Amino acid sequence: MRTVCVVGIGMSTWGEVWRKSLRQLFVDAALESINNSGVDHIDSLYVGCMSSGLFVQQEHLSSLMADYLGMPGIPATRVESACASGGLAFRQAFIEVASGISDIVMASGVEKMTDCSGDDATAALATAADQEYEVFHGVTFPGLYAMIANAHMAKYGTTREMLTAVSVKNHFNGSMNPVAQYPFKVKPETVENSVMIADPLHILDCSPITDGAAAVILTTEEIAKKLGKPYIKVLGSGAATDTIQIAQRADITTFKASTLATERAFKMAGKTIKDVQFAEIHDCFTIAELVVLESIGKYEPGKAGPATLAGETALDGKFPVNTSGGLKSKGHPVGATGIAQIVEIYKQLTGQAEGDRQLKSNPKIGMTQNMGGSGGSSVVHVLEVV
Amino acid sequence: MRTVCVVGIGMSTWGEVWRKSLRQLFVDAALESINNSGVDHIDSLYVGCMSSGLFVQQEHLSSLMADYLGMPGIPATRVESACASGGLAFRQAFIEVASGISDIVMASGVEKMTDCSGDDATAALATAADQEYEVFHGVTFPGLYAMIANAHMAKYGTTREMLTAVSVKNHFNGSMNPVAQYPFKVKPETVENSVMIADPLHILDCSPITDGAAAVILTTEEIAKKLGKPYIKVLGSGAATDTIQIAQRADITTFKASTLATERAFKMAGKTIKDVQFAEIHDCFTIAELVVLESIGKYEPGKAGPATLAGETALDGKFPVNTSGGLKSKGHPVGATGIAQIVEIYKQLTGQAEGDRQLKSNPKIGMTQNMGGSGGSSVVHVLEVV
Repeated sequence: MRTVCVVGIGMSTWGEVWRKSLRQLFVDAALESINNSGVDHIDSLYVGCMSSGLFVQQEHLSSLMADYLGMPGIPATRVESACASGGLAFRQAFIEVASGISDIVMASGVEKMTDCSGDDATAALATAADQEYEVFHGVTFPGLYAMIANAHMAKYGTTREMLTAVSVKNHFNGSMNPVAQYPFKVKPETVENSVMIADPLHILDCSPITDGAAAVILTTEEIAKKLGKPYIKVLGSGAATDTIQIAQRADITTFKASTLATERAFKMAGKTIKDVQFAEIHDCFTIAELVVLESIGKYEPGKAGPATLAGETALDGKFPVNTSGGLKSKGHPVGATGIAQIVEIYKQLTGQAEGDRQLKSNPKIGMTQNMGGSGGSSVVHVLEVV
Repeated sequence: MRTVCVVGIGMSTWGEVWRKSLRQLFVDAALESINNSGVDHIDSLYVGCMSSGLFVQQEHLSSLMADYLGMPGIPATRVESACASGGLAFRQAFIEVASGISDIVMASGVEKMTDCSGDDATAALATAADQEYEVFHGVTFPGLYAMIANAHMAKYGTTREMLTAVSVKNHFNGSMNPVAQYPFKVKPETVENSVMIADPLHILDCSPITDGAAAVILTTEEIAKKLGKPYIKVLGSGAATDTIQIAQRADITTFKASTLATERAFKMAGKTIKDVQFAEIHDCFTIAELVVLESIGKYEPGKAGPATLAGETALDGKFPVNTSGGLKSKGHPVGATGIAQIVEIYKQLTGQAEGDRQLKSNPKIGMTQNMGGSGGSSVVHVLEVV
């Protein structure tokens, strides 16, 4: 297998983008990634998208996206794994370049979620859970993650204060991210007094409904060097699944798919969690960030909450997490999230993160962890600056 | 890149399968492919599916399918390219084995289309066209292909009789296929007197709405040999896109994406169309089979109709096409179709096609051509028996 590098990045505006369509959001991010990398063509295209069918009644994204990018003809593939669609699209692009089939491949993600009503968006998102055994009975994602939160609190003593600390930290980071949907700081009391969604999760524990796209260019190290732009290497890629229903899991206070995907990515990279200096983590709800930090082996079970409260995952902490603002503040256009995580790692590793968000520690290795549903799928990447 | 082989196949029942769910159809085909190949595990799974979201309100197929196959943990990826989803899933599995990332990969496809009303199924399928410029104005797929048929008739003198010959031939072949949805023969007058859908296309020019799944196992040649079962080699894989709207094409009497995908597959295979002895072609409508046969370079423009009328594409013809019965008779569960095409090539090349459908010519090389929407995407594979 060939060494694969990321040579350029692009992101559309993220938020409630009324004036741009699904295709336009994608094109904005895609063209920016082409300009940013300096490539004069792409051999192939991947787009991660969870449910353009339910959100905007449009499937066949391979043809649509290649067409509206002005490149009908290129091979194009849409990849879906619920909220891990973007991470999986990146993995497929990585495999295609590594295999030698293609030299320059775009990995992108997009979702246009606000064109349907809030109820409809919640129903569309619920299709990432088990339709016959979960959704049919009325459970939606805030409810599923609330059950996980309650179980984690009961088993490990995780507190309301720890969940709040995740939200406050991620909003602080996101306040310095120009594309963030909610780039404002929040105080602990604001989080705790915000409307209750599913006990113990308040609205400020939940990632928002977002329109947005992100794109990156992957290529060989030889081409990356020739382009003369900053690039980073993909050291490892891991993907895994778990039962789609949380009811079928032996333990709902851990995400087994994230553990497996991390082990696979580290095995390929020849690294361990100790070699990684910062991470972008799938904080679809505050509790998810804590459970993931334990599932990927960064903290022992029950220790991620206290570490977050102690500031270890803050910008100036020992292991900064979600320097981009995470899903919580930056937004969560589900298909695009996994690609935007790569964008943030690229920015941090190449010293291009905006304003005071840039890590002072001069990190060399970062990782992403993207997750579908209530943890039924997960994709992890380990990236290094040369 | 490593040589990749197909070592086992599986198919569920195809038709209006009221008693089986999306997940059960998939599991039926998947387990059969595992048993048929003799592998004791799979490293990874691809599933092609166009729109489980719109058909049965279920996304996140990676997790669902791995889970219900009894293998939560394995990497799993859902691939979508409208009616070419299955072909593209096969291509991704091929790339993964070729790259060295995995040794044994399942490529599958599934669609459960009859759980919603006929109107809803037509609306779901229409999302493979351009929502903003085609579907919004009321056009559906029979209408799009009727325009293509009329243009082809006007330009090349293709006749009603030639379209009829495609339907009669494919139903004849499908009458010998035990999994076919409509395994009955039709007479020319039955086709021509059947209800008109979109002039000149009658209902017996159209592929049906189908529930069904198909799966195949891909592996390295080394492992294929060890398994001791019949296997075939993937010589070439090509994918391409075209504008999603037919209105934006210079010529709607040809499928440019199919031409490009074929060129790419033959380039990789080091073969030409002259080396291929039979094919499975995307006959979603009778006119599609004729236009595809010209687009892949088998016949000059306007010559596929007369050749079909002369019996050249029949079972005992010079270039048998759709020996399985094609989409027309076998059925068209959109995400599964591209995989079922591979299944038929495997059966023919290994001498396992049921009854009188087995080609007497002892073919060595066959090809598949799978297509999305009105030709906005296409995937082509060239396969050889060892």
